[in-house]
Amino acid sequence: MRFTIKREELLKALSVASRAITGKTPIAVLSNFKFELNEDGLFITGSNYDLSVMTMIPYTKGEETIIRNHKEGATLINAKIINEIVRKMDSSEIVLEVIDSTIATISDKKSEYKLNCVRPEEYPDLDLEISGTELTLPTADFDLLVDQTAFAASNKEQRPILTALNLEASNGVLTAVATDSARLARKTLPIREGVEFVANVPAKMLVEVSHLVSDYSNVSISFSDKKALFAFGDTLVATRLVAGDYPNTKNIVPKFSNYTLEVNAQDLVKAIDRANILSLERENVVNLYMDGERVEISAKSSQVGSATENLEIFRYEGESLSVSFNSEFVCAAVKALGSQDVVFSFVGEMKPFVIRNASDDSVVQVVTPVRTY
Amino acid sequence: MRFTIKREELLKALSVASRAITGKTPIAVLSNFKFELNEDGLFITGSNYDLSVMTMIPYTKGEETIIRNHKEGATLINAKIINEIVRKMDSSEIVLEVIDSTIATISDKKSEYKLNCVRPEEYPDLDLEISGTELTLPTADFDLLVDQTAFAASNKEQRPILTALNLEASNGVLTAVATDSARLARKTLPIREGVEFVANVPAKMLVEVSHLVSDYSNVSISFSDKKALFAFGDTLVATRLVAGDYPNTKNIVPKFSNYTLEVNAQDLVKAIDRANILSLERENVVNLYMDGERVEISAKSSQVGSATENLEIFRYEGESLSVSFNSEFVCAAVKALGSQDVVFSFVGEMKPFVIRNASDDSVVQVVTPVRTY
Repeated sequence: MRFTIKREELLKALSVASRAITGKTPIAVLSNFKFELNEDGLFITGSNYDLSVMTMIPYTKGEETIIRNHKEGATLINAKIINEIVRKMDSSEIVLEVIDSTIATISDKKSEYKLNCVRPEEYPDLDLEISGTELTLPTADFDLLVDQTAFAASNKEQRPILTALNLEASNGVLTAVATDSARLARKTLPIREGVEFVANVPAKMLVEVSHLVSDYSNVSISFSDKKALFAFGDTLVATRLVAGDYPNTKNIVPKFSNYTLEVNAQDLVKAIDRANILSLERENVVNLYMDGERVEISAKSSQVGSATENLEIFRYEGESLSVSFNSEFVCAAVKALGSQDVVFSFVGEMKPFVIRNASDDSVVQVVTPVRTY
Repeated sequence: MRFTIKREELLKALSVASRAITGKTPIAVLSNFKFELNEDGLFITGSNYDLSVMTMIPYTKGEETIIRNHKEGATLINAKIINEIVRKMDSSEIVLEVIDSTIATISDKKSEYKLNCVRPEEYPDLDLEISGTELTLPTADFDLLVDQTAFAASNKEQRPILTALNLEASNGVLTAVATDSARLARKTLPIREGVEFVANVPAKMLVEVSHLVSDYSNVSISFSDKKALFAFGDTLVATRLVAGDYPNTKNIVPKFSNYTLEVNAQDLVKAIDRANILSLERENVVNLYMDGERVEISAKSSQVGSATENLEIFRYEGESLSVSFNSEFVCAAVKALGSQDVVFSFVGEMKPFVIRNASDDSVVQVVTPVRTY
């Protein structure tokens, strides 16, 4: 294998494939990228088994030649090292050449790097074929779906299923649910009729995918038994699925409420963020008190002191109510709604409460209060 | 004590005093700022004993009222907490009031924070009086002196004296020397005749001071037995001195050379930085090879591969020479010189070599080579 390539294009592709490279991998060969030059272009693959990314650089883009002076072939090269070399070189074109399958040289006019490389046969078969039902979404929709839900998934491995985002396509609606059992986020999207699937995709990996798709207008999603596949531009991403059944969350969102509060999202987040400074002994717990006259956020530390924040503009309906909650959970939920005003619906002091975007029914956030006594 | 103060001015002063607040202090009372409002203004002091900062906010600046509605007094308030509260508030004015000497309230129209505070008598006497010879320097000179030398001081406590910058004023010249025994940096500045002192100031603290002085045009330096004092604007900084005699470094800078290399500083740093990617087994060691034909930077890893960088533009005088060194030391020295071209002078393969700014004699960098066999 040998080729001369535009450095910027190679660097971009290496950054994409690097998303799948983790610091330490139990399988030594996965510390490498797989490079394969065939008649379509240069394919670069990175994987940590849980997440695999394959991206392709074509020979030409429009009038511009990207790869020239080439000979087909394949090799495996240390991912971290080649990424760093290509990033730090400053020529516009660089040459990559494999000599007798054990040494790859990367060079330009003034630099020459000789890297030990590995035969391509040593790379595992990652099975990156698209199969089964395919669903194509505008990336803006996909990003919003991930942004508004993934943060609510658990990051603890005790119950692996809760680290997943539960995706269900049925009757022309795609529903995404994430919960760590103390909070829940749910988002729905209209999709074409006839697409039906249920899959539990690790939330963290969906966040990775949403970073990668941002330059493209559409993303295609398909599922096999153990994998979710995402295709966009010249890139294919595969992530493992989480095994097991997702808990039934249909009855978690309360159907009615006894108290409702409408407030400006930014004012609320700022007030909570400030009051939280004093939430020291019991980290991140703040209290919300509401009645017809005032809405107050407060926090207390027996050692340091207390904070009281008044929200000046609000609309409240109901008797007086005092609710304590994890401030990070509420701020994350409010920010995820992405609206100027948010509506809180409470059933009672210790019941899960709902936070909604006043003008968008497709997303719901639920948070369970915490006891303070 | 009570006063109403412009939030921006308070925040700026708190950030300055915060430089002296460290995460954990063996003396609990030093987790507080001392606030003292007297006829001159509001004095805020922060200290970790090694470094103390006192800054003053006057009642007025020109036509603008900064502090109003005041009553003199003093108190101690948790530094981290008040800093965070004032930073996150968004009013232009805030009110600070001490109630019966145990509670301080910080408030604006919508927020009220009640903080447990400590009686001012509990604060140690920091002795921030200016005494002895005073030397006033333009801050640009002071910053340059610190930037070009402090990085070469040791950050290990085995030989505390080497963590200091050695400052010596004599015969109208201020000389600063730092060395960690593998490298040395020396800078001289002309000063007024008659100022004579020798002092070893912790290099890290001089870096802190140089951050703080950057908004002012001059800084005054004075020394007592155990302290260096820096005065600028309405701020006074005291740092402890390092006890003991500084080693004699006068003979470390070689007086002659057998080989000289002149190169572009940026090209050299970039080439070393790239080659260093392959310096894996023996971290940061790269080799410089020079003869009349070529100048080459190289590094090698038995596991990963090798790097060779050619410098295209250079001027070299001498026989062929190969020198290995710590790449970080050389890059830091070259950057500190702040010039487009740098001149290396070598005596031999294993002798300390000198790096100079081609057009500025006031600064000298010395680096000791490392063995590679």
